[in-house]
Amino acid sequence: MFESAEIGHAIDKDTYDAEVPALREALLEAQYELQQQKRFPVIVLINGVEGAGKGETVKLLNEWMDPRLIEVRTFDQQTDEELARPPAWRYWRQLPAKGRMGVFFGNWYSQMLQGRVHGRIKDARLDQAIAGAERLEKMLCDEGALIFKFWFHLSKKQMKARLKALADDPLHSWRISPLDWQQSETYDKFVHFGERVLRRTSRDYAPWHVVEGVDPNYRGLTVGKILLEGLQNALKVPKGKASGMKPAPLLASVDKKSLLDSLDMSQRLDKDDYEEQLITEQARLSGLMRDKRMRKHALVTVFEGNDAAGKGGAIRRVAAALDPRQYHIVPIAAPTEDERAQPYLWRFWRQIPGRGMFTVFDRSWYGRVLVERIEGFCSPADWMRAYGEINDFEEQLQDAGVIVVKFWLAIDKQTQLERFQAREEIPFKRFKITEDDWRNRDKWDAYRAAVGDMVDRTSTEVASWTLVEANDKRWARVKVLRTINRALETAFDKSDKHDKKGKKK
Amino acid sequence: MFESAEIGHAIDKDTYDAEVPALREALLEAQYELQQQKRFPVIVLINGVEGAGKGETVKLLNEWMDPRLIEVRTFDQQTDEELARPPAWRYWRQLPAKGRMGVFFGNWYSQMLQGRVHGRIKDARLDQAIAGAERLEKMLCDEGALIFKFWFHLSKKQMKARLKALADDPLHSWRISPLDWQQSETYDKFVHFGERVLRRTSRDYAPWHVVEGVDPNYRGLTVGKILLEGLQNALKVPKGKASGMKPAPLLASVDKKSLLDSLDMSQRLDKDDYEEQLITEQARLSGLMRDKRMRKHALVTVFEGNDAAGKGGAIRRVAAALDPRQYHIVPIAAPTEDERAQPYLWRFWRQIPGRGMFTVFDRSWYGRVLVERIEGFCSPADWMRAYGEINDFEEQLQDAGVIVVKFWLAIDKQTQLERFQAREEIPFKRFKITEDDWRNRDKWDAYRAAVGDMVDRTSTEVASWTLVEANDKRWARVKVLRTINRALETAFDKSDKHDKKGKKK
Repeated sequence: MFESAEIGHAIDKDTYDAEVPALREALLEAQYELQQQKRFPVIVLINGVEGAGKGETVKLLNEWMDPRLIEVRTFDQQTDEELARPPAWRYWRQLPAKGRMGVFFGNWYSQMLQGRVHGRIKDARLDQAIAGAERLEKMLCDEGALIFKFWFHLSKKQMKARLKALADDPLHSWRISPLDWQQSETYDKFVHFGERVLRRTSRDYAPWHVVEGVDPNYRGLTVGKILLEGLQNALKVPKGKASGMKPAPLLASVDKKSLLDSLDMSQRLDKDDYEEQLITEQARLSGLMRDKRMRKHALVTVFEGNDAAGKGGAIRRVAAALDPRQYHIVPIAAPTEDERAQPYLWRFWRQIPGRGMFTVFDRSWYGRVLVERIEGFCSPADWMRAYGEINDFEEQLQDAGVIVVKFWLAIDKQTQLERFQAREEIPFKRFKITEDDWRNRDKWDAYRAAVGDMVDRTSTEVASWTLVEANDKRWARVKVLRTINRALETAFDKSDKHDKKGKKK
Repeated sequence: MFESAEIGHAIDKDTYDAEVPALREALLEAQYELQQQKRFPVIVLINGVEGAGKGETVKLLNEWMDPRLIEVRTFDQQTDEELARPPAWRYWRQLPAKGRMGVFFGNWYSQMLQGRVHGRIKDARLDQAIAGAERLEKMLCDEGALIFKFWFHLSKKQMKARLKALADDPLHSWRISPLDWQQSETYDKFVHFGERVLRRTSRDYAPWHVVEGVDPNYRGLTVGKILLEGLQNALKVPKGKASGMKPAPLLASVDKKSLLDSLDMSQRLDKDDYEEQLITEQARLSGLMRDKRMRKHALVTVFEGNDAAGKGGAIRRVAAALDPRQYHIVPIAAPTEDERAQPYLWRFWRQIPGRGMFTVFDRSWYGRVLVERIEGFCSPADWMRAYGEINDFEEQLQDAGVIVVKFWLAIDKQTQLERFQAREEIPFKRFKITEDDWRNRDKWDAYRAAVGDMVDRTSTEVASWTLVEANDKRWARVKVLRTINRALETAFDKSDKHDKKGKKK
């Protein structure tokens, strides 16, 4: 969920200086339009890692926009008056009116996270708080509010560097961060529970936006543009439809950089290394699948990727290691009539393996946010809510002991072209290349954006995505096998620890 | 929440026999239309108290409708296959396809309730299960499903009689109920936690319908008509809008009987008794409000009622007992401009008293489901979701120690007429009667239905409604005071117990 916000997004000064004036003007215009229409309030929630520029960004927004129409609220210690009333009272009294914008620091999310990180509450209580936040936001949106939720993120390394820089800077040294952030354990917990909160509360009507906080230009421009797009979108809704949902569009990365760029596409294995490593990993997989700890688990792997990225070949190398009675390959094509008569997740629920078993999905439920999104087979509202639904689904799998491993096999455009051409030339491979493939290729950029959103919104601790550099098929196949093996070992280790804990008690 | 299902609803045989043929025909027709359109599936959840006719009603539906298009599923012990997979798998595999109807016994609600009643899980875990159920149902509805949730109810007395009758009946004695239902403690717990579940999961897109289970004619007709209205409503949605929410309309009681009928409107107090009791209750209230345990609580009273039912007079008698610094009366009229610029609950949140304090609402947030519903000031979707939002709101109040006491002051139509006329004749009271009052009077039946739905859906353990027979003002005033006093005492007793428990630890 935070991967895309650890890749060093940056906007150089020239680009920034060139873009800001127009953005400021458009933001101001949207703000006045909002004030004139007085149809809905805007609520901006600011959360995230210490030192990631939360305060600076809000300062910037106040500079860019008309601060008379922005109410910045910091919710820190509760006042006497607040302590005498239900916890939500402090938020209600500060809600911005229709036509205005409220920026909430230290909001309901900060409170639940602080409580969980410092052990004042446990998971079940955190989940109650999450459910409460969902209800509150759902109601606010039903009443017409437009909600933006920003999570400012830094990797642990980035955070440490940043805190140090702040402390060394005489202009900023007064901004002493809470002491506990110096400890990396706090960071780990904060990000771990933060992920749980984001996963559960990123809903179509109020999605989270994770913003990398290292580069001030990048984070300022990103937040500004997300606000602008969301505002313009909501202001366009015809007058009659004053209230109701206004799902914010997802914004493409402002520096055009995505997690896919961080892949080193030149990764490769020569034949000897490949054969040796392949056999090693296959043997390891075979052993792990026969391990008695596998009886408490099931395994699901998802293969998605560019056309001709080599999904089939990778799947065959996985299958080769296994007893055919233990695994099942499910190729996903257009849904059948029976499947169309059911919710879109139904066809996948049907194929969930029982304990000890392994299901390989050759394409998957992610079709909803890839092909269905791009081809318009479902409405934007449908694929926007799918991220949350899919996270719920995978969380249920994990809770039941199912290990979920997801691969995106990535090739570059040139490699795809070469493979397409090669396929057309080899008679027995010609069936593998169709008009559809060429058509999809024309939508390369749309797919690229959809893959980025998919990974950002569904790569969770529960089921993370592995991006596989697949220009070299050998490299890809070994990486796939090794990733599955590691996932199995990690899960087995956890079970072992859990068992030991149980025995000690 | 269950009050309306304990008043002895019944349909006599003649009426039943006269109504059933048309209902059956219409149900069959709707069913075939559903099958032809194949646009959405229908899911019927059957829950409730043991012996309240769950099985018989489903049997009846199978007789009335085409059983080939109904799939009745009982989820009892999990099978081996089910145990090897995530808990929801068993429901997914049995989901009815578009155009078909699935009747689910022993569904997700039964499981969480059983778990909680028998102490296998605690409240926080129950709330997690509730949140899971909400997500599942929200997703199913977003995917187009039409969900009906029926809770078959019996009072404890009715349940005991019914279990006994079943046991004595040779035709039914094989239907041995679970032994634990013989214990009234199980009933209490089941209804207590059932209420929590219903309160949280009765949402506009999938509301609960509570059906009194004593009279087979009544419960059969009720369920049949709710299904029919919901089906016809959903089938009418234009083709393009295949998926999405289809809030089911609320059905008026099929025997025209409502909780308001169960009031004995002839209740009265003569002058001497009134004066004595009034002074006693006022002194009691005064003492309770000065009790040091009040420092941990706040008090909110809601006064709603027919026009001219005597809300003002009752409020004055309450206020007379108190130090003016301790209470605050909030008359609710049409919202101001500031208030219209906020979610509808905002004006009430503003007025929530701090600890030790008392706010009297003369009319309240229930305007949303009364006048706003009837006058069309908000859309059906808006007032339908308000029940859940109001329950959330009041639950937050109660969690923070606020005691919420809600009154509906009821007078009959004739008494209202007399009071209206009297007001018009007395010069200094003439301002109290307006065109609006006469107009509202024309909508007597609509208000009556709205009051019934309001009480059914928002009378909770957290904040129950007290219906006050107000034809006699003296009776009403004393009942109001006494109810407030009892509520305070009950809350104080609970705090005491809680404190003792705390000390023991």
